Amino acid sequence: MKSINKIAILGVGFMGGSLALAIKRNFPGISVTGYVRSNSAYKRLSKLNIVNKVEKDLGKAVCGSDIVVLAAPIYSIIDYFKKIVPFLKQGAIVIDLGSTKELIERKAFKYLPKNTHFVGCHPLCGSDKSGAQFSTPSLYRGAICLVSTSGDKKNLQKVEFLWKKLGCKVILVNAKTHDKILSSVSHLVHLISFSLTGFVPKAYLKFAAASFRDLTRVSNSPAAVWTDILISNKNNVIRDSEKFIKILEKFKELIKKEKKEEIFKLITSINRKQKQIGILH
Amino acid sequence: MKSINKIAILGVGFMGGSLALAIKRNFPGISVTGYVRSNSAYKRLSKLNIVNKVEKDLGKAVCGSDIVVLAAPIYSIIDYFKKIVPFLKQGAIVIDLGSTKELIERKAFKYLPKNTHFVGCHPLCGSDKSGAQFSTPSLYRGAICLVSTSGDKKNLQKVEFLWKKLGCKVILVNAKTHDKILSSVSHLVHLISFSLTGFVPKAYLKFAAASFRDLTRVSNSPAAVWTDILISNKNNVIRDSEKFIKILEKFKELIKKEKKEEIFKLITSINRKQKQIGILH
Repeated sequence: MKSINKIAILGVGFMGGSLALAIKRNFPGISVTGYVRSNSAYKRLSKLNIVNKVEKDLGKAVCGSDIVVLAAPIYSIIDYFKKIVPFLKQGAIVIDLGSTKELIERKAFKYLPKNTHFVGCHPLCGSDKSGAQFSTPSLYRGAICLVSTSGDKKNLQKVEFLWKKLGCKVILVNAKTHDKILSSVSHLVHLISFSLTGFVPKAYLKFAAASFRDLTRVSNSPAAVWTDILISNKNNVIRDSEKFIKILEKFKELIKKEKKEEIFKLITSINRKQKQIGILH
Repeated sequence: MKSINKIAILGVGFMGGSLALAIKRNFPGISVTGYVRSNSAYKRLSKLNIVNKVEKDLGKAVCGSDIVVLAAPIYSIIDYFKKIVPFLKQGAIVIDLGSTKELIERKAFKYLPKNTHFVGCHPLCGSDKSGAQFSTPSLYRGAICLVSTSGDKKNLQKVEFLWKKLGCKVILVNAKTHDKILSSVSHLVHLISFSLTGFVPKAYLKFAAASFRDLTRVSNSPAAVWTDILISNKNNVIRDSEKFIKILEKFKELIKKEKKEEIFKLITSINRKQKQIGILH
């Protein structure tokens, strides 16, 4: 990408840090600047040798950047839209790594200048790790990256090229469909995992069977990130949890009435469905 | 175990088959007989070389056995109690591998002759695989085996010795407590996994993120086994699912009202709890 000389990453945690490492590896000509807010983060990130330049001044970080990456919890991404406006150069592409897309996109089109371009992105690499120290250049290799289709075609293609070069399989999807699907296959799933860990009596934690460990693993996902995901996708998440509860209630009724044959049939059909679960990354 | 010459395993699937292999390896002096009900199962099991003798006649399988192992879904175990009575020798020990213990124990004490001994067992090795062809002699190595405390001490010690020799860590627990704990850390967990797979629209299955795969993995667990577990432990399972739904409903309300701080605090406390989840095997 000859036209890209500088990329700024705002929020250098696990996702942002891994992105910096992957860009440095795959695009040696591009300089990556990492923006941090505190002195302590400045010192920490400087030691890690993840970005070419650590910057505490938002203006300096954004200024001259061809691509600005917002790698932060969703409402922080939205705050950044307003803050970066004065520093964005003409033609700059702004992308984000947020796990919901509709609200972010609406805010991007509201706040960002007309002579810049926004392309919403959602690389599915999990977010249960947090902290730049865990960054790895191979995080995106083989991962699915969902890219929103609302941007203009030329810049969409540039962003697609970037992700593909980092090893992602890109799937184009509109923001509304994205949020609906992700609510079912990820956001509700985390909510269930949080609730299950919340439910279990502390004294039983040491009796964790393999199934319990499987279902509670992602309940270690960072609170800041997931609070924003659940609220920003609330309509889908609430509708999905109501549907899920209905199925659980149906099971409960069948168990209460000891409807052995019906439970057997229901689980058998679920067994069959489970075999069709695909592998995204 | 000098006094043990013959062990009969009634139900030679993954659990029973693995037990046969483990006994043959650790107690070369003991002859293991596997009981099957159909001609096709007889042929299949004979080819697999898992037991010393395959038997289609229940009487011949049980007759002369020092230990009779019931490795079947819970209500089949209970049926076996009645069927084996005429063939049990004096002093025989009957054990089961069922995932709930209270109902099984009550039926065992009701049906089995006074001059035999019952010890309820529950090795926690997972049951998502099924079929003798997957049997492995190392299945029980390092696994927890919960053993019910209701039997007389001498026979309890014999059974404990057997499991320990196969590599299990034995935990003694009374049947009522067993069923309460397992409901929370395993039975509800499977019910949630079944419900989640049941919930998800088929078209979304190909978008399975890592979290979704984690939470739906055990929904492939065999319907016959799990129908019996859920019904036989219904009071605990129903109470636990109601408690779980309450937490999910609480989350739903907080999300609906966009109570950002409260959701953050709740997830943070769940994150802390998740770190305390122990490793059972």
